[in-house]
Amino acid sequence: MISIAKKKYLKSLYNKKFRLIENKALIEGFRVINQALKTGFKFDHIWIDEKLNNQDKDSILLIKTLTNNNIPFTFEKHKDIKSISDTKNSQGLVALINTKNFFNTEKENFSDKIVILDQISDPGNLGTIIRTAAWYGIKTIILSRQSSDIFNPKCLRSAMGGHFYIKNCVYWSYDEIIQFIKTDDYHYYCSSMNGKSIYSIKKKNKWALVLGSEAHGINQKLFFGDKLSIPSKDNIESLNVSVASGILLDHLISN
Amino acid sequence: MISIAKKKYLKSLYNKKFRLIENKALIEGFRVINQALKTGFKFDHIWIDEKLNNQDKDSILLIKTLTNNNIPFTFEKHKDIKSISDTKNSQGLVALINTKNFFNTEKENFSDKIVILDQISDPGNLGTIIRTAAWYGIKTIILSRQSSDIFNPKCLRSAMGGHFYIKNCVYWSYDEIIQFIKTDDYHYYCSSMNGKSIYSIKKKNKWALVLGSEAHGINQKLFFGDKLSIPSKDNIESLNVSVASGILLDHLISN
Repeated sequence: MISIAKKKYLKSLYNKKFRLIENKALIEGFRVINQALKTGFKFDHIWIDEKLNNQDKDSILLIKTLTNNNIPFTFEKHKDIKSISDTKNSQGLVALINTKNFFNTEKENFSDKIVILDQISDPGNLGTIIRTAAWYGIKTIILSRQSSDIFNPKCLRSAMGGHFYIKNCVYWSYDEIIQFIKTDDYHYYCSSMNGKSIYSIKKKNKWALVLGSEAHGINQKLFFGDKLSIPSKDNIESLNVSVASGILLDHLISN
Repeated sequence: MISIAKKKYLKSLYNKKFRLIENKALIEGFRVINQALKTGFKFDHIWIDEKLNNQDKDSILLIKTLTNNNIPFTFEKHKDIKSISDTKNSQGLVALINTKNFFNTEKENFSDKIVILDQISDPGNLGTIIRTAAWYGIKTIILSRQSSDIFNPKCLRSAMGGHFYIKNCVYWSYDEIIQFIKTDDYHYYCSSMNGKSIYSIKKKNKWALVLGSEAHGINQKLFFGDKLSIPSKDNIESLNVSVASGILLDHLISN
C-alpha cells in the first residue's frame, strides 16, 4: 500500500520546483528502467502493479534483476500505481531516482566531445536529443539556464534511458559556457541555417556542438565559431531539432 | 461568427472517422500555414482570431497573402477560435483543408526515391518523418494500412508543413507494397537493428527505404532486401524512429 502522504510526495515530483528541492524524480516504463539497470543504476524504490507479478517473461526478468541487484521494490494495487503515474496508459511500474550526484559536474572530467543545448524548451525534443547523444557516445552535456529540466518526466520518457549513459551534465550561464570553451580549447561548432555544409566539414578530435531551439535558435552570445548547416533538397523551412542533432552528430562522429 | 453547427462539424474533424467521410482536415499555426502558402496551396477557409487583425508584421503579411491568393478567411472572436482549436495555446488561426486529391495516388507518377512507413502509430513521429522526408526532397510516401492517419492534427502539426511538399501518398496492403517494389524495380532498403552499416552503403538512383515502428519494427512480410543499420557508439538500445529516418535519408541522398 502507498500511503496518502507518500502519494502526495511522489506526485509533487511532477513539479520542477519540488524536484529541485528534493533532488528526486520519477521515471516509468519497462524500456527505460531496463536500460538504466543495464548500466548498473541503483533506484531508490520501484512501485510495481501487482498484476505484473509473475505475469510474463518481461516482468519475471525484471523482478529477478531487481532482486539480484538489491533494488527495493513493492507490489501495489493497480489504482495506486495509476495514481502516482504521469502517463495515460501506465505500463505498471514507477521508479524513484535520486538526481543529486546523478551527474558528475567537475569540468576536469568532461569528455572530448560535448553537446551544448541552448533554450531547448520542449521536454520531448530535449529527451530525444539526450537519447541520440547517448547513442553516439557523447558523455557530456552542457545546458544554458534557459533550457528545460532534464528530469522533467516527458524528457525522461523520450530519452528512453539516455540519461543513464551521460556522465556529465551541468546548467551554466552563457558566460560560463564561453569561458569554458575558450579556456579548454574545444573546436566550437554551431548549428545554423546559413552555415557551411556538413558534407564539407573537417573532423576534429575535441569539439563542442551547440544546438538551439526551433523557435529561437541559438542566443547571439553563443553564436560564433564554425557554423554548420544540413543542406535541404527542397525549400521547406527547417528540420526538427532532434532530427538535426542526429544528422549533425552522425557527421561529426562517424568514420 | 461561427455557428454552433459549423463548430460541431469542424470539431468532428479531430476524429479520424469523420475526416475520412468528409475528406477534410484542420490545420493550425503560422509556420504550417505559411509553409503551405509558399507551395501555392489553396485552403478551403481560414478562421482567424480578431485579435490578430493588424496586430503585427506576421499577421499583416499573412492577411495580405490570403487576399492576394483569393483564399477565403474570416475574423472571429477569440473564444470561437479557441473552441475549434485542438491546441492548448492556439496561435489564433485554424484552416480547413480538402484531403481529397491532396496527393496524387497514380503509381506512374511515383518518384525515384520513396519512403515506406510500416506501423508508425505515433502521429508526432509520423509528422516528423514527413517533415524530414520533405527536407530531403522525397516526393512519394507509401504507408502500410497499419500506420497512423497522416491528417491527424498532431501529425500535421509536427510535420510543420511537410505534407505540402509530398506529391504522392498512398495507404497500401503489404501485398500491394511488395508487388509494386518488385514490378517497378526499386532497390529496396530496410531499416534494421542488425543490418549493414550505413557508412558502407553503395548509393543507388532508384530506391525505396522502409522504416518501422519503434515498438514493433517492420512486419516480416516487408523485411527483406538490403538491411541498413546506424552503428551506435554505446550499448543504448535504439534511436528515435524519426531521428533514425533523418540519418538514413541523409546517407542515401547526400553527395
